[in-house]
Amino acid sequence: VLVDGIPYRSLWIADGAVHIIDQRRLPADLVTAALNTVEDVARAIREMWLRGAPLIGVAAAHGLALAVRHDPSDAAIERAAALLLGTRPTAVNLRWAVDEMRAALAAVPPAARAETAFARAQAMADADAETCRLIGEQGLPLLTAGERSEVRILTHCNAGWLAAVDWGTALAPVYLARERGQAVHVWVSETRPRNQGALTAWELGKAGVPHTLVADNACGHLLQRGMVDVVLVGADRVTAIGDVANKVGTYLKALAARAHGVPFYVAAPISTIDFGVGDGSAIPIEERDGREVTELAGTRLAPEGTAARNWAFDVTPATLVSGVVTERGVVPATTDGLERLRR
Amino acid sequence: VLVDGIPYRSLWIADGAVHIIDQRRLPADLVTAALNTVEDVARAIREMWLRGAPLIGVAAAHGLALAVRHDPSDAAIERAAALLLGTRPTAVNLRWAVDEMRAALAAVPPAARAETAFARAQAMADADAETCRLIGEQGLPLLTAGERSEVRILTHCNAGWLAAVDWGTALAPVYLARERGQAVHVWVSETRPRNQGALTAWELGKAGVPHTLVADNACGHLLQRGMVDVVLVGADRVTAIGDVANKVGTYLKALAARAHGVPFYVAAPISTIDFGVGDGSAIPIEERDGREVTELAGTRLAPEGTAARNWAFDVTPATLVSGVVTERGVVPATTDGLERLRR
Repeated sequence: VLVDGIPYRSLWIADGAVHIIDQRRLPADLVTAALNTVEDVARAIREMWLRGAPLIGVAAAHGLALAVRHDPSDAAIERAAALLLGTRPTAVNLRWAVDEMRAALAAVPPAARAETAFARAQAMADADAETCRLIGEQGLPLLTAGERSEVRILTHCNAGWLAAVDWGTALAPVYLARERGQAVHVWVSETRPRNQGALTAWELGKAGVPHTLVADNACGHLLQRGMVDVVLVGADRVTAIGDVANKVGTYLKALAARAHGVPFYVAAPISTIDFGVGDGSAIPIEERDGREVTELAGTRLAPEGTAARNWAFDVTPATLVSGVVTERGVVPATTDGLERLRR
Repeated sequence: VLVDGIPYRSLWIADGAVHIIDQRRLPADLVTAALNTVEDVARAIREMWLRGAPLIGVAAAHGLALAVRHDPSDAAIERAAALLLGTRPTAVNLRWAVDEMRAALAAVPPAARAETAFARAQAMADADAETCRLIGEQGLPLLTAGERSEVRILTHCNAGWLAAVDWGTALAPVYLARERGQAVHVWVSETRPRNQGALTAWELGKAGVPHTLVADNACGHLLQRGMVDVVLVGADRVTAIGDVANKVGTYLKALAARAHGVPFYVAAPISTIDFGVGDGSAIPIEERDGREVTELAGTRLAPEGTAARNWAFDVTPATLVSGVVTERGVVPATTDGLERLRR
């Protein structure tokens, strides 16, 4: 993507370091950070300098490459893999990327591993960008406005290029629609408690896509009053039967979409499908620090000492999902539908 | 209620002025404000120094009394009534209270109106406190824990004593349960964009009621995972057929409660029932300044120039409401059920 005329990805290699955009500073400031060790990468993932299931996977691959450059032994690779896998439990792309890297590195002798690791990590980044572009192509036909000139899309959290390497998942069809001259308007839900809706608003603003921010609480009203043509979200994990773990609050939007007959699509690369899990209740749901709910930018939002719980994700049952938009097509959120995508 | 050992109501008369708690300053500071004119009262309602459907009604009655003290003419009363009715459109208690006051004042000559007005306003405050206590009595049997020792309640926004004169509506049964030794735990939803969940956390903390704050987005997860026994919310308007306008986000919680077979009760005084409106889609939904979404306590939450929409309420259809808890009993959210309460 272009940001103020400058081409950007969410992650790249330069001067021997892995560079990322520090997303904690957005939307106020566009600041990059250089990560030099696997520990740097693990911290950046855990503390959410970067986030988004596809990007977490690609970043973890780069973390492994940094580890291998330092020490290419089997033991060092296992240590680095364990460190990265422990950062965030819900997104399956992280495990997928680490497993891919481990398999590739096991096939070459230690002396050749650093070169292999960086090549594989970079290839993974390039592949992710292409995958997301294809998700855009596959999802574009879903953006139909009926008799209106403009398609009204509701999205949740940030599933744009900041959450991937380029293009994004849920936003890829939106960007493609914009490129091809189709009028779109995006309702952006705030996405408490970490307000990733602000990242989506920033992305869409930079790309010139019309959008409006709303409180998460307003999404039922939007759907009830017929102001949304299609709901389009990303995913952190899709199970073999089509249950979807995504940013907490996704489930409520899916319930409201169903109640009002509005299609609810999940956009995700095939690497987000976890064929090893069936029922979504088996997905580990990350619980983060309650201070994400009780504090914001140094301001206390609740009385001193208020207890808070803070689940980062929820599970939307397959029955509420109109389809899964992948790089190889839109499939039903069913065992049969997803099985078609299995490699 | 007692706050740090001192008896409090949310509104009282002293030294010839109407005193309120400035709820914009909570939960950080307990600060009171003296209102001397109807214009003061109208501003306090519009700018949400005070809020909550029952309290808005009682405050408006006091505003009319202040106006009448200044000028008891019919014209002055009509001007004051129009000013107050224009502050906030959704809560029906406001109109109810103004109409009650107008009728009472029309029955007495101008010279007697100030005395009548203050007496009626104070009587309305006392009646509201008693009404809320009765709502507590009526609602208490709904707080059943099954086999657990503790009833787990989910509430939204603030429907406690800060939203009424004393006791509150949805929280009245909770306070009564606590008084009578029944173990309760309250899930408090943050209630973006104005974070009235913090008021509820503050109230419950002062009363020693165990509670936990969660993002609004987490409520689907809570209900899906069986962590809630009953949902209990207030209302700004209940229509003749049982549709319920309440704080935006209520509808999403009702959908999730229904999806998981958890009862969803609305607690409100009979004055909240608008027998003149059937379908909830006819209720005017207040839209507030988008900056409530894009800014918080001086911090920008979205990129400069981001458009935002900010509906303050939504409508939960009667079919999702397990019952309406009033001072005269718990009735079904149906025309027949509500008709029984008509005076």
